[in-house]
Amino acid sequence: MIEVAVFGAGRIGKIHAGNVARHPQAHLRYVVDVNEAAARELADLHGAEVASVDQVMNDKSIGAVVIGSSTDTHADLMQRAAAAGKAIFCEKPVDLDLERARACAAAVEKAGVVCMIGFQRRFDPTFSALKSRLVAGEVGTPEVLIVTSRDPGAPPVSYIKSSGGIFKDMLIHDFDIFRWILDDEAVSIHAAGSCLSDPAIAEAGDIDTTAVTIRTRSGRICQINTSRRAAYGYDQRFEVLGSGGMLQAGHVKPTEVIAFTGKAISTDLPEHFFLQRYREAYALEIAHFFDALTDGSPVRTTIADGIKALELAELAARSWREGRALECSV
Amino acid sequence: MIEVAVFGAGRIGKIHAGNVARHPQAHLRYVVDVNEAAARELADLHGAEVASVDQVMNDKSIGAVVIGSSTDTHADLMQRAAAAGKAIFCEKPVDLDLERARACAAAVEKAGVVCMIGFQRRFDPTFSALKSRLVAGEVGTPEVLIVTSRDPGAPPVSYIKSSGGIFKDMLIHDFDIFRWILDDEAVSIHAAGSCLSDPAIAEAGDIDTTAVTIRTRSGRICQINTSRRAAYGYDQRFEVLGSGGMLQAGHVKPTEVIAFTGKAISTDLPEHFFLQRYREAYALEIAHFFDALTDGSPVRTTIADGIKALELAELAARSWREGRALECSV
Amino acid sequence: MIEVAVFGAGRIGKIHAGNVARHPQAHLRYVVDVNEAAARELADLHGAEVASVDQVMNDKSIGAVVIGSSTDTHADLMQRAAAAGKAIFCEKPVDLDLERARACAAAVEKAGVVCMIGFQRRFDPTFSALKSRLVAGEVGTPEVLIVTSRDPGAPPVSYIKSSGGIFKDMLIHDFDIFRWILDDEAVSIHAAGSCLSDPAIAEAGDIDTTAVTIRTRSGRICQINTSRRAAYGYDQRFEVLGSGGMLQAGHVKPTEVIAFTGKAISTDLPEHFFLQRYREAYALEIAHFFDALTDGSPVRTTIADGIKALELAELAARSWREGRALECSV
Amino acid sequence: MIEVAVFGAGRIGKIHAGNVARHPQAHLRYVVDVNEAAARELADLHGAEVASVDQVMNDKSIGAVVIGSSTDTHADLMQRAAAAGKAIFCEKPVDLDLERARACAAAVEKAGVVCMIGFQRRFDPTFSALKSRLVAGEVGTPEVLIVTSRDPGAPPVSYIKSSGGIFKDMLIHDFDIFRWILDDEAVSIHAAGSCLSDPAIAEAGDIDTTAVTIRTRSGRICQINTSRRAAYGYDQRFEVLGSGGMLQAGHVKPTEVIAFTGKAISTDLPEHFFLQRYREAYALEIAHFFDALTDGSPVRTTIADGIKALELAELAARSWREGRALECSV
Repeated sequence: MIEVAVFGAGRIGKIHAGNVARHPQAHLRYVVDVNEAAARELADLHGAEVASVDQVMNDKSIGAVVIGSSTDTHADLMQRAAAAGKAIFCEKPVDLDLERARACAAAVEKAGVVCMIGFQRRFDPTFSALKSRLVAGEVGTPEVLIVTSRDPGAPPVSYIKSSGGIFKDMLIHDFDIFRWILDDEAVSIHAAGSCLSDPAIAEAGDIDTTAVTIRTRSGRICQINTSRRAAYGYDQRFEVLGSGGMLQAGHVKPTEVIAFTGKAISTDLPEHFFLQRYREAYALEIAHFFDALTDGSPVRTTIADGIKALELAELAARSWREGRALECSV
Repeated sequence: MIEVAVFGAGRIGKIHAGNVARHPQAHLRYVVDVNEAAARELADLHGAEVASVDQVMNDKSIGAVVIGSSTDTHADLMQRAAAAGKAIFCEKPVDLDLERARACAAAVEKAGVVCMIGFQRRFDPTFSALKSRLVAGEVGTPEVLIVTSRDPGAPPVSYIKSSGGIFKDMLIHDFDIFRWILDDEAVSIHAAGSCLSDPAIAEAGDIDTTAVTIRTRSGRICQINTSRRAAYGYDQRFEVLGSGGMLQAGHVKPTEVIAFTGKAISTDLPEHFFLQRYREAYALEIAHFFDALTDGSPVRTTIADGIKALELAELAARSWREGRALECSV
Repeated sequence: MIEVAVFGAGRIGKIHAGNVARHPQAHLRYVVDVNEAAARELADLHGAEVASVDQVMNDKSIGAVVIGSSTDTHADLMQRAAAAGKAIFCEKPVDLDLERARACAAAVEKAGVVCMIGFQRRFDPTFSALKSRLVAGEVGTPEVLIVTSRDPGAPPVSYIKSSGGIFKDMLIHDFDIFRWILDDEAVSIHAAGSCLSDPAIAEAGDIDTTAVTIRTRSGRICQINTSRRAAYGYDQRFEVLGSGGMLQAGHVKPTEVIAFTGKAISTDLPEHFFLQRYREAYALEIAHFFDALTDGSPVRTTIADGIKALELAELAARSWREGRALECSV
Repeated sequence: MIEVAVFGAGRIGKIHAGNVARHPQAHLRYVVDVNEAAARELADLHGAEVASVDQVMNDKSIGAVVIGSSTDTHADLMQRAAAAGKAIFCEKPVDLDLERARACAAAVEKAGVVCMIGFQRRFDPTFSALKSRLVAGEVGTPEVLIVTSRDPGAPPVSYIKSSGGIFKDMLIHDFDIFRWILDDEAVSIHAAGSCLSDPAIAEAGDIDTTAVTIRTRSGRICQINTSRRAAYGYDQRFEVLGSGGMLQAGHVKPTEVIAFTGKAISTDLPEHFFLQRYREAYALEIAHFFDALTDGSPVRTTIADGIKALELAELAARSWREGRALECSV
């Protein structure tokens, strides 16, 4: 049994805490949050204790930490946990600053602890089944990847200002999907973008709509389109054209009711946002983390993956700002 | 916190035990099974104890029993639990013998305990959303119900012999769906059937394919078609034609991968069998049971529903044997 | 080139006249209708002449007649055309009276002329592709057929009164589908029905909703459900469960636009009624008729098929009226 | 009645000739082709005559020409027809050389004749229904357009060499879709590309896979992805994200058969190639041309549209070759 501390008692922290509590090899011991009331509530729900960061780091019985606190705390908590010899599960991104993220990765690597970054989409049943079938050769060699990734609505501008921008905040997941699905690295990247939903986003220096094109070492092509606002909800799809066919990851819907009225045939909208859409993925990634800790197998989403996705996000942002395609150092 | 004993450590018992263990208001205390090793394994998994029937019935701390043991034990266990004042959740059917089932229902009613029958389909997210939208009037007054219910393959003939026949074993669920969705009672029933997959089923006096037509008090019509063998898996669908449109409950699939090859566009088969297809429904019905016990609200699938479905199954079997439509006493 | 006379300048007559005019081996010479203005308009559209029945029957240059006039004229026109040695294409039904229809069939057979009945559904691209794949063994031996056949709305009661009733008017097509798809004959039939949309239909002695069950010589089962009123339009589907899988004939829609709004994902309704839904089928059946005349091959929907479907319609109507299942003479 | 000459008796010429012959206001008088046998066969099929270019241009009774001959003949035939005062329907592209195309457009404009370019996709029932619904405001203001356009297989390299390259040969249609659907003009364009299916295409100086991003005057974004080879057939889709939702143009399939086997649920592949996929669109564009000539209304796809699409194709090709995004003169 692995004793676990969860950092962050907000939206994502609650999800992780629940999944830790349900895992047979993990025991949720501590919840840590600057908001003590939130920490208390979450701890109570699972029979855990509230603790401070120091307490967790100094408690030798704690084998693993799950970091779901705010982005600016990630790197510091990871480095402290690494120094304390604890296995680490951390939400993306490692840090908004690439240099800081790289330093963190180096520290983690030096400490030799297991470290997994929460790219939960790789654990989604539909996405991972698609990947498996791709690897099995069902549609030949992958050639083109088209990723659609749209949020139901833009977050408050206050959030956007500290988000690192749309490329680090939203597309970091899509860049990870790109690397994972094509199993290849970028040689060039081009990003276009617009602010179409709310001028306040532009005033904050950001955009709400992007179109990214990546070309890979082996000539494969990836197009990503994202939007902060899809009036119909959360749109998470991708498709891979291979030399022998195509695999698509379609919409996941809450129910399979189909309604026929005088106007149309209609079905449910896709699951409304990431907490619902990736509910199973969140459970499966936490299970993967503790399974890996238990049997010593490697984790599937490493801190190196986190750095690579961040590098692409930074390049994409620069391509958009400069209005030109960029080479990627390979 | 309600202390609970689960009877039956087989396929369905395991599902129920897991769902009991996960419910915040329930505590799995005992597992009972004639197969002591199975009981032990299931109890250990959830930190529960193995117990005998007597032990459970005599333990005043036990507030509820969940009966997932073999069909021939249901009525006796229900009556004993009722006499001991325990709330009852019991798998369908109450009993294969209608008179015995009625006697059990009378005993339960007299004891005044809460008693819920496991018609889990009513708790399926797709089915219950359809029902809610129907009740909300989205397609007007319901007029016609078409139910398709097919198993991936016939069980062993040894099972079929003690199953009570296809109408009590398989269609009992469909009869409950009929009553629930149309919110009406049968006035006439006609059943046709054939044995098409395996002559051994016919030799055992049963059939593997049925076509049932029910007409209701208000003139609504229900057609049910079932089969013991669908080569493509477990097929659970229904559709309601209303005066203002139609609602369909479509297939639930494991993933939303769509494959395009040189031959076809293809998607996953439906979930393979009832344990997967109704996984959420099983969790939701157990949650409903304990929620109802906790807040005192009525359970949604009563022993009276169990009796009604059994009556229809018996009539349908008679209609098939006699080759004629039958009136239902109303 | 075959010289052709079309009887009937109404809705279906226009369709047939257009398809005759477009066929390279046919030449539309005459249009006949009691409504002379309608005949004139249709004849003018295609550069044909208006003629009387006698004129057509006495004109030795006319090789074929296409009968799309009112039902009560079918048998007489067929017999006269047969006596005149002309090939016959006639809309269903042969006649509402079974004895009269049989006499007509005997006369046609005696005359030895080619005679095709307009069961256009057999020529629908989706339905005929399904049949071909069934024959090719794609899903093994057919076992169960479920037919759904719903009109968008009931015709005027005046029409219903002279229609021969729902079984002869609507279900005659479904009975033909049954015989064609299962390639088998009925041994028993049961029909239930209700009048749910308009009490005037009941007062006219008819129903608007039916549920028919047929069992065949080889034990196959067919369930048909029909309704005069589907608020969402024209619903024409069937599915065949075979020993190795299932084939479904799904909805045909005008366009493939998919709309995502804040409420739902929606697609077009099915084609609105038979003229649109079976537009290609009408062209293909006429093409089949003239192709068969040209190359001497047999027609695929004979007057014997017309009689068989009528027999089932009569039995079904009797089963409904008498409230009991009936044996079919085989 | 408009007398018509069709230039070209090849694949597309046959389609146009048939559609001209079926139009009530058009009469197919002449067929012209350097391959006289082909011209003869097509003329005979429709009761037309074979003629030379001079004969057509000098025949004052000819009101319209339909040009479906090889690309290098388009501009010359258009200019001669314009000079002769004949209405012109011409297949895309006007010419592979932009200057030559502009000169042709100027000549046509000066002559004041009606001139329509065959962007048949605008007439496809699914695409035009989507456009109408977009214009009607069903999903608010359009913001993002994603176009997928893939051929079933690459043409012979000999064809590719004289095709003008993938951007002028394939994407010209997609550029027209872009302008039509977004009702906007490009301000910047970026194209990436690879040769993945056959090295011979690269040796011919071309690519088989492209990814284009366009940004418009009003900040809208369009991503186009194309491929010469989709193992599953002809893939023609697009989707428009609007401020209030999304409209997708989905696959058009030959039949609506759905097959359930032990492995998957499968449907037909999309229509196999452009002649099948756009069969109705070809008929509707020709009908539109003659309807416009008859009632004097403007044609919907003008020579100016042809020039605009060609300009985008040329810019895209340059962007790809130079590996950088380009500004469009607006």
